[in-house]
Amino acid sequence: MRISELSAATGVAVPTLKFYRREGLLHAGESTSPNQARYDESHVARVRLVRAMVEIAGLSTASAQSVIAALDDEGMPLNSLFGVAQRAVTMPTALAHPESAAADGDGAADAAPAEAPGARIIAELCARRGWHVHGSNPGLAMAARVLDAYAQLGRDDLLATLDAYADAADTVARADLAAVSGAGGVTDMTDVVVIGTVLGDALLAGLRRIAQESESQRRFSAPPASAARASTDPEESC
Amino acid sequence: MRISELSAATGVAVPTLKFYRREGLLHAGESTSPNQARYDESHVARVRLVRAMVEIAGLSTASAQSVIAALDDEGMPLNSLFGVAQRAVTMPTALAHPESAAADGDGAADAAPAEAPGARIIAELCARRGWHVHGSNPGLAMAARVLDAYAQLGRDDLLATLDAYADAADTVARADLAAVSGAGGVTDMTDVVVIGTVLGDALLAGLRRIAQESESQRRFSAPPASAARASTDPEESC
Repeated sequence: MRISELSAATGVAVPTLKFYRREGLLHAGESTSPNQARYDESHVARVRLVRAMVEIAGLSTASAQSVIAALDDEGMPLNSLFGVAQRAVTMPTALAHPESAAADGDGAADAAPAEAPGARIIAELCARRGWHVHGSNPGLAMAARVLDAYAQLGRDDLLATLDAYADAADTVARADLAAVSGAGGVTDMTDVVVIGTVLGDALLAGLRRIAQESESQRRFSAPPASAARASTDPEESC
Repeated sequence: MRISELSAATGVAVPTLKFYRREGLLHAGESTSPNQARYDESHVARVRLVRAMVEIAGLSTASAQSVIAALDDEGMPLNSLFGVAQRAVTMPTALAHPESAAADGDGAADAAPAEAPGARIIAELCARRGWHVHGSNPGLAMAARVLDAYAQLGRDDLLATLDAYADAADTVARADLAAVSGAGGVTDMTDVVVIGTVLGDALLAGLRRIAQESESQRRFSAPPASAARASTDPEESC
């Protein structure tokens, strides 16, 4: 198909497709003339994947490039691909680059061990659960920084939620890996790793918001006004 | 304490504190002269909260303002505060503003019901689990868009993970609400709602990355090189 047909098949405008091509997010088509190329179903699938990464998971172009490069590297073991996909998912800047937060203001004192127990608590959690990961796993620093923030905010009581969060992480990880194992060939497996990892955070964050509101309604009585509205306006509720 | 002492107590530079003041993120101190004010422990706590929201959870100034305004509104019911905190957490732009994604290119066809089954699947999930939420809950659109992306990418097999993700969301929501109920007074409860909601996504995403790598190691044999390195270099692993 021509680029205009690739655009129609994917719902992505031609200038955007040309941008994807320039940025290495879309592989070359077969040249049919000096300024024309022919595209196939592999291009349709790739455009949809790039679009999901950029528009739904919110990845930067650079992060999407790193995932695409890993996908196209046939020699990359599945574990490494997981790592690339995990790192690519958008994180708050301070989590992705802990050193940038430390450079803010004169906050060096915040890095003192006594005020930053997060790393130790996470290491103990890993030992308790039999989790074995390399020290470069980006989740270690993400989780530790949240626990450090709980401590600095004087909310050590939130540590009581840690094991429930770890249970939830285990539940999701087992489902993720079962999906990878269940996928057909190697190409399908790498697809599932990337799509599941990149979009899974957003799915989990969405479901958490639904479950949280539902549980909050159950525990605390809703204010009369909204309860009345919910009962007379059922199509507005889930 | 003076502003220089507030800076020392929180590790936040004076110009940043003045910025927080101007943006309404920090309440006024007690005026002691035309250009001096006295701050107390309530200001220390507030600065730490703002810093955690902006630097760790990655909230924009506008989002942090909406949370602070809700915290300071003593008449706001706890359920509404949950909603404000949920909406404030940074989301990929396309998730927060679904209409902006539809405006991209000529992608109107992607909005056709046959290609967008996500909302229906989430409504069925809510019914199955007894989840009751208002239609304005931001999680509904977030989760539905991810499922729509699975369908468009031809990866309906990932739908098999949905119930496990919902189990995980329930586990976390129950822990979140137990922490809220366990907090002392109303001020503590609103603190826990805001801190737990805003930072909990990052904690969950971090633990998911750890559990995923660990589960991947368990299912798929690690490449020999990294396995050997892990065994001889134990301090690098968790």
